[in-house]
Amino acid sequence: MGKAVALTGIKPTGTPHIGNYLGAIKPALELVNSYDARYFIADYHALNTMKDPKELKRLTLEIAATWLAFGLEPENTLFYRQSRVPQTFELTTFLSAFTPKGFMNRAHAYKAIVAQNIQDERDSDDGVNMGLYTYPILMAADILLFDTDIVPVGKDQKQHIEIAADIAQTINYHYQKEILRVPKPLIQESTELILGLDGRKMSKSYQNVIPLFATSKNLRKIVMKIVTNSQAVEEPKDPNICTIFTLFKLFSNEVEQNELRERYLAGGMGWGHAKEALFEKMDLFLSPFRDKYNQFIQEPSLIEKYLLEGEKKGRDIAENTMNRVRKIAGIY
Amino acid sequence: MGKAVALTGIKPTGTPHIGNYLGAIKPALELVNSYDARYFIADYHALNTMKDPKELKRLTLEIAATWLAFGLEPENTLFYRQSRVPQTFELTTFLSAFTPKGFMNRAHAYKAIVAQNIQDERDSDDGVNMGLYTYPILMAADILLFDTDIVPVGKDQKQHIEIAADIAQTINYHYQKEILRVPKPLIQESTELILGLDGRKMSKSYQNVIPLFATSKNLRKIVMKIVTNSQAVEEPKDPNICTIFTLFKLFSNEVEQNELRERYLAGGMGWGHAKEALFEKMDLFLSPFRDKYNQFIQEPSLIEKYLLEGEKKGRDIAENTMNRVRKIAGIY
Repeated sequence: MGKAVALTGIKPTGTPHIGNYLGAIKPALELVNSYDARYFIADYHALNTMKDPKELKRLTLEIAATWLAFGLEPENTLFYRQSRVPQTFELTTFLSAFTPKGFMNRAHAYKAIVAQNIQDERDSDDGVNMGLYTYPILMAADILLFDTDIVPVGKDQKQHIEIAADIAQTINYHYQKEILRVPKPLIQESTELILGLDGRKMSKSYQNVIPLFATSKNLRKIVMKIVTNSQAVEEPKDPNICTIFTLFKLFSNEVEQNELRERYLAGGMGWGHAKEALFEKMDLFLSPFRDKYNQFIQEPSLIEKYLLEGEKKGRDIAENTMNRVRKIAGIY
Repeated sequence: MGKAVALTGIKPTGTPHIGNYLGAIKPALELVNSYDARYFIADYHALNTMKDPKELKRLTLEIAATWLAFGLEPENTLFYRQSRVPQTFELTTFLSAFTPKGFMNRAHAYKAIVAQNIQDERDSDDGVNMGLYTYPILMAADILLFDTDIVPVGKDQKQHIEIAADIAQTINYHYQKEILRVPKPLIQESTELILGLDGRKMSKSYQNVIPLFATSKNLRKIVMKIVTNSQAVEEPKDPNICTIFTLFKLFSNEVEQNELRERYLAGGMGWGHAKEALFEKMDLFLSPFRDKYNQFIQEPSLIEKYLLEGEKKGRDIAENTMNRVRKIAGIY
């Protein structure tokens, strides 16, 4: 009691990469210092776009192992799969009765699809399934079920939290009682942009990512693919406009950065050497996490045990919320 | 095993009247002779339009008592509240991922609201909440969860069953396995039209209904309100174009009908007498059901007991279906 509740949703839709770690996993795991931190794997959200059962199962396991490897402490936080807290779906149905359809029509993600369809001269709802369309209600249920105070999100996700807050307020107003806690977004300061292999933002959709848990050998191969200019070895190089150096900074201290900067400016260092330096720092940083990750992946029953424990606690909290909801609504 | 499953949904949104009994309750209860008959009170469906908790609770109790009074045997059928089978809502979420938004856009009920809004120059989605919009998915979940073969419906509800069948087929096709049983509508032969007090179809929305369980005294008062023409007592009257006679036929045998018909044709019978004859037959028919209804209403704990037993059995069936679904989808 006392601490505000912070809820982080994790969608298992791709193998996690360095951009995910620095932009989302790391800051989310730090919430544990100031909040009652709760983390869930949004497997039913993933189902909207991921309909291969083996892949969904594999990614769910991998994402759980990833967060555990980076230090998520299942004993001190709440860690669960959305699918195992069935109250989520009952609350979704309840919230739907209080959600004007206009809220969904105005959702950015849906509007973007409609705009693209119109541009491509397709039916405006082409390719939209109801899971995608009602996504903000399911997300509101995830949030409201756990008495969430704050939800760490990027700016592009802010609207979802606002929708959840609007629905909660509508319900509280209707019943003239604070049945659901009204959540606030915690906008993650746009931390340093994590660059991908091609110098653009690291993103699965650009296929320019550096995975977190490649073997040393593979990580080296991947780092060697970073796109550079065609300066010759002897030329002095500018560390300030270099993808390699930008990534290097993320995994090194100031002394190490100054040392490499001097090598850049002095000339006589080829890109291969810079990549080697980056690889070494990255590998040094990642290798203990990689070891933990591999331990977890090889012991899925331990992951399952942690999740089952979390889900048991989760269902208790959820049932508490639903009992308030059902009672005030005249359902029970 | 062996018998096909027939599922009837009961929406607790109004005090049941004679039209409900003859048009829906009676034929639905007769299904027990040929089917594995299952009945559920659709309380979360009701929430979309009924947001007064006391009213929702009262109507849920009344509708349960009504069906029990008319002979629903909770031991030989399945009788449960939708809200107590939470797998319904998880299945709804699952189905949503496989439901193109176009299915909802084409639903008759939604299209009717949009047409009315456009005619009245309002926003096309004015007054539409997401519960109403997604109603066909929740209904599909109700149906598919219980391995339903047939759903007795009026013609206007046929589309809902077709949507449920389409969703089930989409899922079975995707996973190349018959995960969900594909339901069929059982179109209720449009039985005799039940006339209301004003001679139009008996309907809550016309405020012309004869409630099933009014006291004798009140029933008499209500019957006396039936609208007639202004023929004098001495005039011969035409039983074939008379609301009173039409209703009388529903509650009497041929001998009694011939007797009253003769009084109509002979003249010398005022409308008050005809109404009195109708009231007496109606009261005679309804009074044993009214007694049973009142017994149930006075013993809500017995209703609760029946429902809780049904819900326990219902959840077992539902969990079975959901386990198939989760397994094939890679969720568990």
